[in-house]
Order: sequence, then structure tokens, then C-alpha cells
Amino acid sequence: MFTTAFQIRVRYAETDQMNVVYHANYATYFEVARTESIRKLGFTYREMEAMGIEMPVTEITMTYLRPARYDDLLTVETVLRELPDNHVISFHQEIFNEKKKLITSGKVTLFFLDRVTKKRTVMPEILREKLKAYFN
Amino acid sequence: MFTTAFQIRVRYAETDQMNVVYHANYATYFEVARTESIRKLGFTYREMEAMGIEMPVTEITMTYLRPARYDDLLTVETVLRELPDNHVISFHQEIFNEKKKLITSGKVTLFFLDRVTKKRTVMPEILREKLKAYFN
Amino acid sequence: MFTTAFQIRVRYAETDQMNVVYHANYATYFEVARTESIRKLGFTYREMEAMGIEMPVTEITMTYLRPARYDDLLTVETVLRELPDNHVISFHQEIFNEKKKLITSGKVTLFFLDRVTKKRTVMPEILREKLKAYFN
Amino acid sequence: MFTTAFQIRVRYAETDQMNVVYHANYATYFEVARTESIRKLGFTYREMEAMGIEMPVTEITMTYLRPARYDDLLTVETVLRELPDNHVISFHQEIFNEKKKLITSGKVTLFFLDRVTKKRTVMPEILREKLKAYFN
Repeated sequence: MFTTAFQIRVRYAETDQMNVVYHANYATYFEVARTESIRKLGFTYREMEAMGIEMPVTEITMTYLRPARYDDLLTVETVLRELPDNHVISFHQEIFNEKKKLITSGKVTLFFLDRVTKKRTVMPEILREKLKAYFN
Repeated sequence: MFTTAFQIRVRYAETDQMNVVYHANYATYFEVARTESIRKLGFTYREMEAMGIEMPVTEITMTYLRPARYDDLLTVETVLRELPDNHVISFHQEIFNEKKKLITSGKVTLFFLDRVTKKRTVMPEILREKLKAYFN
Repeated sequence: MFTTAFQIRVRYAETDQMNVVYHANYATYFEVARTESIRKLGFTYREMEAMGIEMPVTEITMTYLRPARYDDLLTVETVLRELPDNHVISFHQEIFNEKKKLITSGKVTLFFLDRVTKKRTVMPEILREKLKAYFN
Repeated sequence: MFTTAFQIRVRYAETDQMNVVYHANYATYFEVARTESIRKLGFTYREMEAMGIEMPVTEITMTYLRPARYDDLLTVETVLRELPDNHVISFHQEIFNEKKKLITSGKVTLFFLDRVTKKRTVMPEILREKLKAYFN
């Protein structure tokens, strides 16, 4: 299992007139946290795209339990439970507020695609090597 | 069953560097289509908020089948399969491109809340009356 | 002078906790209206990019006079005062609410760039031909 | 003069199909940097709203010199040149990339408004006291 945590401060732009974070923005928080999760391995999603692999989201589920508000400092936990052995990868993600209350939980599934052909491919070996240590 | 369709043109701002609509933006398309769905009944979500009821999203699931691109004219179908009898309402939504290919499908669940107390409430009677005709 | 008008309905996602449209979103409204302005000529910005020309914004000024609110039906007026004779083009844009009150006014300057070389270029001849009728 | 700097990492969601940050998003970067600028004084914009004062943007100018790209770590410099003596406050802001190249520069003007009456007011005394030290 590979688990990381990243903090995100709620921006004014991300609130709506209900005085809370607009629900679609949590998908962006999840994406930012996945990016930082990979960075902690000493690799970046940007490098992966430069290598010719992209990772479009193919499914997302989000459950909203409590509202987050402007200027809240949120902690996004990102968990990779299984090392993928094909073109599919899934992350479980949870967002907590400063009082450690669960705000939103979700699951995001992405594909590994070849950027040019758009055909399914697999996780690049360089990333698999770095992740292996967390799964045995 | 209450079914409506609404067209949305993809904005440049909604694309990302993968040359497709950024995945979180479909949640906004769904929301716009729900707003227009209610408007077709001769009622508006704005009026509902003015009456003191708000509808936060409590769960969303989206499956992405094909990409949508800048300037595509999308059709968002919104289906209410059941008339809710408590504080919960769920919409099934599908987005099609101009070739009638399914782009994204999803399910969105919302609560009826009292805007002041934030306590659960039910669909306002004025909206229920308008919807009844579709659920004999 | 080439003048067009396009209507945009304010989305919930575009409001912030001040109960008004978040100020950055007007730049997107302006962009949508420019896209539609070109479409009225029987040409599209998408076609221009396909031809190898892109138009990045190089300067924007926006003045906010009154707030716009959720569900407001705004009218964005887009004016091209001069036919450009080099790589620079400027649009004057104004946004009005349903009571015809001026909400926001702005000026947006863009460059014509070659998509591959990123060198400055000029308006494609096909678009210039269509615009000529409005300037003489 | 009161000057602060804040770093912002470009999110995937903020790019567009031109492979650069969508121009409207810089207004959000500016806003985030202003928020952090105030926080460095030991005060927050959130507290100001809680005190009954809000600060809508009334004018923004942005000049785009170079593109910023996904995952770039930007530095936003925020400068308050003059301590306001009425309801108007202006910030000069500049965004630099990791190579210290200027990406975007801008000026943002905001009003101090009473949140309830929406009448013009002035900077709260608690903030003025903290800022005074920078404007001998």
C-alpha cells in the first residue's frame, strides 16, 4: 500500500454561494494530491507525459459528508491499495479538515494510455520500480 | 419518469492540455442541466433557494467513455426516475456528443436542506405538484 | 465595426461566497462571446486552430460595476472596432444583465500566432474576407 | 511599501488545450497571493469578512508575457505601494516562473464594503495598524 498526504488551502474562487467548496472542485483537489503523491516517489506526472504516457480519468466517485469552507486547510490522503498489472489504476482518496473530520471520500480510476496512439498501455517501469517497495 | 435534454457548448476554459474537457467539468455540466431541467417545469432552483431550501450534492459518480473537445455541442440528458418521498433525490445523467455517442454518464444524489438550520427537509410542495404528472 | 451579442446564463459553479459571479469568470464569459462572435461570420475559432493559427490573450482589462448573480441571463456584447493589419487584435466587450444594466466592461487583446513555431502571424485571409464587409 | 511572495504550483485543471495556463486563472493566482499576503501580517481575509467587511474586485488588468505550464512552480509577488485612506485599495502583482522570468503582471483594485449594507467603508483599524510599519 502506498499512502501519502498533501495539504490544500481552499481558495475563494472554489467556493459557491452556499458558502462551501463547490462539489466539482474536490475532483481537482484529488488530482492535485495524486500529482504530489507521485512526486514523493521522486518522479512526476509531467515526466510521464513527456515519456509519452497519459492518464485520463475513466471513473470517479465522490461522497460529500461535511462542507469545506474558504481558507480551510484541507489534508488530502491518497492511497494506492494495489499495484496495477494492466492499464487500470485506482486511487482511494479522503479529504479531512483541520479538526480531522472527514469532508469527502472518493475513488478515482485512470487508464494508462499512449499519448500518440491513444491505445492502452501499462505503468512505466521507472514508476513501478519506485512503487514496488510499498507492495510485498 | 421525468426526462429532459439540454445542450452545452464546450468552452476553451474547460479543456486541459490533453485536448479534452477536464474531467471535473462534467460535474458542472450535470449541474447546469439539472437547473434547466427544473426550469422546464416552470420553476427554478433559484426560487427554491429563495424559499429557504438548498440542495447540496452528497454523492456523485461519473464514468468517462469518450472525450469531449473544445467547441463540441453536447447534449446532457437528465432523468429523474423516482419522485423522492424524503430528503434524498437522485438524477441519472448522460452526455452525448453531436454524433450521438455517449461521452459521460453519471448519477448525482442531493439532499433537500433548510438553508438556515441546515436540517434535512423535503421537496417543496410546489415542485412536487409539477413533477407528479410525470409519475402517474 | 463588427458587433455581436451573445447570452450566457450564470452557473452555480461560477458564483462565490459573496453570492456573486467570481471576478475571474468574466474573462471566460468574454472568451465564449468572442467564440460566438466569430461563429456568426460562418467561421469558427476551432477551424482557425485546425489551420495552424492560435490566439493567446496577451492583455485583459476588466472593470466591475455591478454584480451578476446565479441564474442571471447575461448579454455579452463584443465589438471589433478596427480590422487588424498585423498580429494584434483587440475586442471591446460589455456584459449587461436582464435589466440592461452594465455589469462588467473590458478590453481583450490577443495575438495571432503560428501554432507550431509560436511566431507572430496575421489574421487568416478567410476571416479577413468575412470581416471586411463591416469595415469600410 | 508592503511586499510578499507566495508560491503556487500549476494544476492540470488550470491548463487549456494550448498547453498553457488558461488566462483567466491568473486572476485566481493573484487572489490566492493576496490572501497569503494578508496572512503574513498575522491577520486573515476570512477574519475581515467575519468582522463584516468584504473586498470585491472592481478592476483588474493583466498582461501576459510568457506562458506558464502544468506543474510549474510559480512565484507570485504582491506589492501594496500605498496605504489606502479611503474605500479603495490597489495591489501590483507579478508572477515569475522557476527561471525567474516574468510570466504575467497585473494590477488589481478592490473596494472595502460593508457586507450587510454593501456601502463603502475603509480598511479595518486592526489591519491598518499591522500595515503601518511598512509605510513609515
